[in-house]
Amino acid sequence: MVMSTGELADVTGSESGMTKWVYNFGGDTSEGGAGLRNLLGGKGANLAEMAAIGLPVPPGFTITTEVCTYFYANDRQYPADLNDQIAAGVASIERAVGAKFGDPENPLLVSVRSGARVSMPGMMDTVLNLGLNDETVEGLARASGDPRFAYDSYRRFIQMYADVVMGVDHHDFEDLLSLRKDLAGVEQDMDLTAEDLKALIQEYRDLVVSELGKPFPQDVHEQLWGAVSAVFGSWQIHRAVVYRRLHGIPEEWGTAVNVQAMVFGNMGENCATGVAFTRDPGNGENIFFGEFLVNAQGEDVVAGIRTPQHLTVRGKNLQGSTLPAMEEVMPALFGELNDIRSTLESHYKEMQDVEFTVQNGKLYMLQTRTGKRTGKAAIKIARDMVAEGLIDKKTAVLRVEPQSLDQLLHPALDPNVEKKVIGKGLPASPGAASGRIVFSADQAEKWAHDGEKVMLCRVETSPEDIHGMHAAEGIVTTRGGMTSHAAVVARGMGRPCVAGAGDVTIDYAAGTFSVGDAALKEGDWITIDGAAGEIFAGRVPTVQPEFGEDFAAIMAWADEVRRLGVRANAETPEDVRTARDFGAEGIGLCRTEHMFFEGDRIVAVREMILAETEEGRRAALDQILPMQRADFVELFTIMKGLPVTVRLLDPPLHEFLPREKSEFDEIAAGTGVSVEKVRRRAAQLQESNPMLGHRGCRLLNSYPEICEMQARAIFEAALIAAEQTGEPAHVEVMIPLVGMKKELDLLKAVIDRTADQVAAEKGAAPPYTVGTMIELPRAALRAGEIADSAAFFSFGTNDLTQTALGISRDDAGSFLGAYERQGIIESDPFQTLDTEGVGELISLARERGRATRPGLKTGICGEHGGDPRSIAFCEQVGLDYVSCSPFRVPIARLAAAQAAIRAEQES
Amino acid sequence: MVMSTGELADVTGSESGMTKWVYNFGGDTSEGGAGLRNLLGGKGANLAEMAAIGLPVPPGFTITTEVCTYFYANDRQYPADLNDQIAAGVASIERAVGAKFGDPENPLLVSVRSGARVSMPGMMDTVLNLGLNDETVEGLARASGDPRFAYDSYRRFIQMYADVVMGVDHHDFEDLLSLRKDLAGVEQDMDLTAEDLKALIQEYRDLVVSELGKPFPQDVHEQLWGAVSAVFGSWQIHRAVVYRRLHGIPEEWGTAVNVQAMVFGNMGENCATGVAFTRDPGNGENIFFGEFLVNAQGEDVVAGIRTPQHLTVRGKNLQGSTLPAMEEVMPALFGELNDIRSTLESHYKEMQDVEFTVQNGKLYMLQTRTGKRTGKAAIKIARDMVAEGLIDKKTAVLRVEPQSLDQLLHPALDPNVEKKVIGKGLPASPGAASGRIVFSADQAEKWAHDGEKVMLCRVETSPEDIHGMHAAEGIVTTRGGMTSHAAVVARGMGRPCVAGAGDVTIDYAAGTFSVGDAALKEGDWITIDGAAGEIFAGRVPTVQPEFGEDFAAIMAWADEVRRLGVRANAETPEDVRTARDFGAEGIGLCRTEHMFFEGDRIVAVREMILAETEEGRRAALDQILPMQRADFVELFTIMKGLPVTVRLLDPPLHEFLPREKSEFDEIAAGTGVSVEKVRRRAAQLQESNPMLGHRGCRLLNSYPEICEMQARAIFEAALIAAEQTGEPAHVEVMIPLVGMKKELDLLKAVIDRTADQVAAEKGAAPPYTVGTMIELPRAALRAGEIADSAAFFSFGTNDLTQTALGISRDDAGSFLGAYERQGIIESDPFQTLDTEGVGELISLARERGRATRPGLKTGICGEHGGDPRSIAFCEQVGLDYVSCSPFRVPIARLAAAQAAIRAEQES
Repeated sequence: MVMSTGELADVTGSESGMTKWVYNFGGDTSEGGAGLRNLLGGKGANLAEMAAIGLPVPPGFTITTEVCTYFYANDRQYPADLNDQIAAGVASIERAVGAKFGDPENPLLVSVRSGARVSMPGMMDTVLNLGLNDETVEGLARASGDPRFAYDSYRRFIQMYADVVMGVDHHDFEDLLSLRKDLAGVEQDMDLTAEDLKALIQEYRDLVVSELGKPFPQDVHEQLWGAVSAVFGSWQIHRAVVYRRLHGIPEEWGTAVNVQAMVFGNMGENCATGVAFTRDPGNGENIFFGEFLVNAQGEDVVAGIRTPQHLTVRGKNLQGSTLPAMEEVMPALFGELNDIRSTLESHYKEMQDVEFTVQNGKLYMLQTRTGKRTGKAAIKIARDMVAEGLIDKKTAVLRVEPQSLDQLLHPALDPNVEKKVIGKGLPASPGAASGRIVFSADQAEKWAHDGEKVMLCRVETSPEDIHGMHAAEGIVTTRGGMTSHAAVVARGMGRPCVAGAGDVTIDYAAGTFSVGDAALKEGDWITIDGAAGEIFAGRVPTVQPEFGEDFAAIMAWADEVRRLGVRANAETPEDVRTARDFGAEGIGLCRTEHMFFEGDRIVAVREMILAETEEGRRAALDQILPMQRADFVELFTIMKGLPVTVRLLDPPLHEFLPREKSEFDEIAAGTGVSVEKVRRRAAQLQESNPMLGHRGCRLLNSYPEICEMQARAIFEAALIAAEQTGEPAHVEVMIPLVGMKKELDLLKAVIDRTADQVAAEKGAAPPYTVGTMIELPRAALRAGEIADSAAFFSFGTNDLTQTALGISRDDAGSFLGAYERQGIIESDPFQTLDTEGVGELISLARERGRATRPGLKTGICGEHGGDPRSIAFCEQVGLDYVSCSPFRVPIARLAAAQAAIRAEQES
Repeated sequence: MVMSTGELADVTGSESGMTKWVYNFGGDTSEGGAGLRNLLGGKGANLAEMAAIGLPVPPGFTITTEVCTYFYANDRQYPADLNDQIAAGVASIERAVGAKFGDPENPLLVSVRSGARVSMPGMMDTVLNLGLNDETVEGLARASGDPRFAYDSYRRFIQMYADVVMGVDHHDFEDLLSLRKDLAGVEQDMDLTAEDLKALIQEYRDLVVSELGKPFPQDVHEQLWGAVSAVFGSWQIHRAVVYRRLHGIPEEWGTAVNVQAMVFGNMGENCATGVAFTRDPGNGENIFFGEFLVNAQGEDVVAGIRTPQHLTVRGKNLQGSTLPAMEEVMPALFGELNDIRSTLESHYKEMQDVEFTVQNGKLYMLQTRTGKRTGKAAIKIARDMVAEGLIDKKTAVLRVEPQSLDQLLHPALDPNVEKKVIGKGLPASPGAASGRIVFSADQAEKWAHDGEKVMLCRVETSPEDIHGMHAAEGIVTTRGGMTSHAAVVARGMGRPCVAGAGDVTIDYAAGTFSVGDAALKEGDWITIDGAAGEIFAGRVPTVQPEFGEDFAAIMAWADEVRRLGVRANAETPEDVRTARDFGAEGIGLCRTEHMFFEGDRIVAVREMILAETEEGRRAALDQILPMQRADFVELFTIMKGLPVTVRLLDPPLHEFLPREKSEFDEIAAGTGVSVEKVRRRAAQLQESNPMLGHRGCRLLNSYPEICEMQARAIFEAALIAAEQTGEPAHVEVMIPLVGMKKELDLLKAVIDRTADQVAAEKGAAPPYTVGTMIELPRAALRAGEIADSAAFFSFGTNDLTQTALGISRDDAGSFLGAYERQGIIESDPFQTLDTEGVGELISLARERGRATRPGLKTGICGEHGGDPRSIAFCEQVGLDYVSCSPFRVPIARLAAAQAAIRAEQES
């Protein structure tokens, strides 16, 4: 944060013991500065800062956020001395401008704007042209020499003030405006004459009286207090509350209010108004990027009624615009603005987003703030600014929002192509893809095998659809949320996914996919944008992601400072390769059950489940062994010596049996047992709460032969891979769902014994360690004794969140959304770690574990491993690594680096 | 524990630095005593103690439990100096008896027996008559003057030793014995002559050679070491391991080995053997209670081949026996024994269970130990001993096993009636009952209403069967475990229940109840014994429990020392009255949802569930309000000022809808909506893991109008009850399933607002506090902030166990049993609190809660509230009360008193 001259202002300029509620800027003194952002809000602090470094800012004052806090803490009352301080502020503006507030001859007009610590664009209220009344409007007409302008300003003021402050619906004013235009026989507002506007003003005032039973306030001080209260009040309006929740902005921050002398860009041809970024926010190029309009007000640029003109000739040419650039029409003013651009960048050392107005040939800066940018631009700007000597590498690393990398890592729809959304769902997994509609996983796999691109469309997906999801370009479901099976698996695979598209109706029997009036069928092409949750008919061209040198440079700098290791959750060769390409330093979670669903395997797995004796199970496991071993060989070969944490079978057995009774026949035929038996076994395996049921180490302890088969496959594969690659495989065998030390001990004994057997048979000892998931509260509490047997802990934060909070991820949809809206939770605990609850369990488990085993390796392998805020927590509590889905590896690397830098800065 | 002269023996009698492994008794000195139970085992310590107080004990020595520990810690090797110490022990016996081990002329024979700290009857091995070989048997024949006795002893010794020490199957010996009897043309063992036995001995020895390839050992020292090793080895045989697990005996305790001179009760008519209790173990009366046999060995008394005779004439008359009593046949010896009885009781201050043998007119005591007894006897003995001045009241309170009260609190089958078990299940809820078979809850209610006694027989039960369970005398299910719905609810109601009776087949459609060849049908009488899990055809008479003065006295003494409050989990008037009668000091958990299932209410509840708007729900709730209010009035009136903790609605809504699709029509008709809508809503409410779903405060926050209705019903009822009873109702409103403070805050606001409204309407403020269940790990961790809003915590340990351990109670059956067998867990965590995991959460939550709110009231209301071991933990961590099902209240009172006494003793 840049410190400024205003830094100490809160202890100066106020009498002893009195709180300073109001800070002047832009006149004789600038009492605030960028360092006072918390007190003055972003806009106020930056206005003061700009004034302090000599930029032309219309004079004004900021009423602090502390007044907002006071206001809400005291039943919407103001501090007693605020009145005097505001009066002094107004006087200060009057002195600087040389006009007087409410003076019929030379009236001072002001704007009243909110300004919180962080920008909340459009969320809170603004009032412009304040200070106009029936008398001062005449003074404005005289002073500007433009009565139409004066009446139009007054008309706009009444409409805005009555809406924002008094609560009269602005549509009613617009109706009157339309009627007036009809009456005058004109199409455009600007074609109304001064007289038309005068008549309209009277109608506006009558409307206020008839709606509220009281007149529009003529006292300019009453106007000012009304507007200030409206701005403070707008801190708690619904959309602001929602915005804060979405962006994690604490309620107690409050907003400041900025009262500032009006300047007008619409007083003639030597007036203008514009917005600009100091660099291109789209691609980050170091060019002055912006638009302006001559003789216009700020909102006209944004509203799109007139086509704005570019600032620079280069910009004009790049966009093929025929309108002259500011550089051409106002070269001197452009020069001044361009100098300000440099001043701002070298002062703030950040790309800025500014607003300016030219009033009668004089340039005023109305706002500067850090400019929003795309992920791509953030990367380029950060790297360029290091090259330019503005910032250092660590600052550059901090400048890129990790989440924004998501855009870079996935294909996107070609922005230059016309397209029409036919349906919407949740943006469950980013990326764009086109494919032909298929309705089953088997079909997806078959068509993909035949070279077709397919889009798997399902009501919902289940673990037995994995192969089809893999085969598909993307996934659409009509049910389920951001953490539904489809969403989680798709993100893990990096497949684009639109989940819970409720307006789409899929009819498996009829083979149709209907949405609105689009009736598509199997084989039809659709395209999805998983980052937007949008579905398009037909094939929309996509553009492939490019990483480029800037990305590589930032990631290299991130890796230099990062302490946390970054691994990936992956098991298929494709995913494992992707993970390595994205810089994963190991596999933190290889889910072996995913290997059980494919092709012949599922038949053998089902045979095992249906076997009634250990011998029967062993016979089935013997069929699975070579397949599983081959998987591991490939995996270890790709990872070539990097650590691979293999989790033994975790899900309950019923996940391997279908739910539809009709499929039982097929299984019976495939496995050679009676349908009745399949049905009975399926019923027997049914559970009330499968999440808390017979799975993980509980299952392995019931059927140790499964553990034995898996251990054998792992160890034999490790030896083969070592031979093939010349690097010893680095195997970590992980036992899931341990709650009691002995659960782990019994299985560790099976694994150790199997390792001994393999060593005896093959003449070489496979290297390995045995560790455990910590995913139950009891395991976290008993970590001290568990660490006695476990070489590592991997925090399974999905299940740990489910158990610590007692919330089923699959069922949370019915209330978690409401919980966010009600402010019960700040964010979805399945996306961002609940640091207070689950986090304490993690930190306590690590502490207790390391007390027993000082070298204990600890990592996290839940979905949180790819979430930047959760990664910051992992850094804080000192975990050794995070593991996330392959496509989030770069995000995790960057987030880990940022967490390390922040930790260093705070220490 | 009584201290004895042996107390210091472990530092005497051994050379400096040498460990003393062997302790003599019964000869010149008695080196041990009752205080050395841990070192010498129970049997050894008591033999030494008896010898020390001058009772006639055959001389012997004890090899300590430390040898056992050494043995297992050193790969089954013995300490180097053990050999010398055993040799010295043998010499000591030889001196005392005047015979020599292995001496062909005057051979010393010994028994070798195990003896752990606590009795493990029949679990480990014993060898008798050791010291016999081909030479010494002749010496014994001469010394006893009875060759047949000598050969029979040798024959028995070979059989026992070869079986226990050498591993030859004892059936093979029995086959040879049978053949020999056929050959001799006799029926009974005792009809074999000395010559027959000599021949049999040869065959036995040949069998050993042919089975093992080596001869039966002739060296008596080899015999002794073999037997000692076999006894130590038997500590780890399967049945002993299982027994220890069932009785919570730690493996590391080990066993001692007792080597003792043999005495024979079967050497003639002046010999005898017997067992006795110093008081009647069945009813506790202070009479000498025992049996004996003339000319017999110890096992003959137990084996039941000959009918044993009573010790006393009174005992003989009471049982209507025609055989003479010991008092009659051996009056002098009986007098001696009777004196010993007094000596033992005044020495041990406990009822004793003794074994004795008379050899050639001389009485020997072979064992004394604390006698097992029924609950009823325990109570009487404890009270009598206080009256006799033997023990104080606290000791008396400690003398009654809380669990044993279960027998007293429920009706039992008349023990004097012949009965035949037709089926077995789990002993899910104690008590005996008879009733006519019904298959549905509605039918049960209807028949009961018509005055019939009914037995509700279901495949399984669900919450909508509650009314039928209430109406029934008892419940039988064919599926489900000890913690199934039927089991839990039945225990709560005090209804006898046999659950999971897998061999019973219930066919609802046919209306049949078949088991084995019994084909019963609706309306047939059956009887169950819930404490045994047994089902009988027809009506078996039952005897009602009587509490009596002894029970009252012990409970009064318990209440004097108890610190923990004891409340009940109850909501029906009947249960609440039972709770008060059993001494509950309040209701710790009133489950309001149980009030929702009855009669018209379920219709209104379903209307509420099916309503699509808040208005619709409110209309349905308006119908429920008066019914719920009436329930509370009755409840508060019964409890008259005692605290009542009312838990607001907890289960997910789908529990109120039926599962059978066929029932949807009925609901649709009853509530006036379409079947399709009922079906849709039911599908919508379905959850993957209902335990972790939309329930408790989550539901109440979704539908605050439910919370409002319940609060209103409670407060209005409190005012009415106060008026009726003249005592202000003591209401505690409890919010379930809180995980985050704000969940509680939002509902507390609804409750407070409702209280204000009721106060305004009724002109009187209802007294109440608001608190929360702590049943999620997160709630325990965040207890500090939650206590800011909660006036009390009630630990819901059922759910806290489910979440902390990640184990669904409903699904645990598939592996928890195996976990106990595998030694992964010591006991079912749903019955006895997992103090290490769940317990830490409780103690931490209490600590954190009280740091915020020093006066925070804390209690427990899970099933553990009625479990003595769990209650001890509650005392230890300082909870204020436990709450349990009404029928467990006395058990909890006693357990709480014992915990308080033990805490005092330890401090």
